[in-house]
Amino acid sequence: MAEKDLNDLFLDTLKDIYYAEKQIYKSLPKMAKAASSDKLRAAFEKHHGETEGQIERLEEIFELLGKPARGKKCDAIEGILDEGKEIMEEYTGAPALDAGLLASAQAVEHYEIARYGTLKSWAAKLSMASAVRLLDQTLAEEKKTDDTLSQIAETAVNAEAA
Amino acid sequence: MAEKDLNDLFLDTLKDIYYAEKQIYKSLPKMAKAASSDKLRAAFEKHHGETEGQIERLEEIFELLGKPARGKKCDAIEGILDEGKEIMEEYTGAPALDAGLLASAQAVEHYEIARYGTLKSWAAKLSMASAVRLLDQTLAEEKKTDDTLSQIAETAVNAEAA
Repeated sequence: MAEKDLNDLFLDTLKDIYYAEKQIYKSLPKMAKAASSDKLRAAFEKHHGETEGQIERLEEIFELLGKPARGKKCDAIEGILDEGKEIMEEYTGAPALDAGLLASAQAVEHYEIARYGTLKSWAAKLSMASAVRLLDQTLAEEKKTDDTLSQIAETAVNAEAA
Repeated sequence: MAEKDLNDLFLDTLKDIYYAEKQIYKSLPKMAKAASSDKLRAAFEKHHGETEGQIERLEEIFELLGKPARGKKCDAIEGILDEGKEIMEEYTGAPALDAGLLASAQAVEHYEIARYGTLKSWAAKLSMASAVRLLDQTLAEEKKTDDTLSQIAETAVNAEAA
């Protein structure tokens, strides 16, 4: 146990985000269905498609490591998504529902930005150039999604909710 | 219930982050104690002090709203901190412990960045200038802490762990 090094931590964290992405993939259609703003719904649907590609990239990294693609229960994403479900229940039909959904989605994006930033930095230390490239592609997508959500918040959703 | 607007959502989310900050305040000394890198320990200790100020700013905002400062269980931070505890257990004495602690701390920072970004944007829509100023101060501190952690990762911790 005392010997666990960065290779072990990289694999453990890869399993964590693999599990998280699969949960996010299942949640996004529910969030899209709940959204009343067309722009917000479109953003969730677009990110649902991107998430599929992000899961495939993670599977490529498992393959590079010669390990089976397997998730490990991620308490963080469970908690973040539970808060999103709570918003959907407590704000059903309310003017602030979209603002709440959007905030939940940004909490999800920031969890992913933290994890992919970390994994990319570790892959570089471990001299895994292909993994760095794959992780960087996903990290760029997550940051862009977060920016898009911020723009939708500024231009549409928050004004409706106020 | 259908009438819940941005004022309600702002207050609910304020309670969420107030609870989260108090949990973070309790966790940071444990993380500092577990860290073996002096730089990382110092960063956790510094952020412990900052967190105290951030809790006070939230209390000022509750006061501006004329509401009692009260937390509401935040599943997201519970999950994020549980993952940190798991790292402390599974990597006790291991070379990758600091890298794991640092990654957990960055997941915490990103949750806070998401929440404070959202709250600041809502406070602006609700024309609460004093709250915007207070939230912006904390948001800047959280971003700076995240940057400091990234630098420590690049310069010290990841190289040790590899």
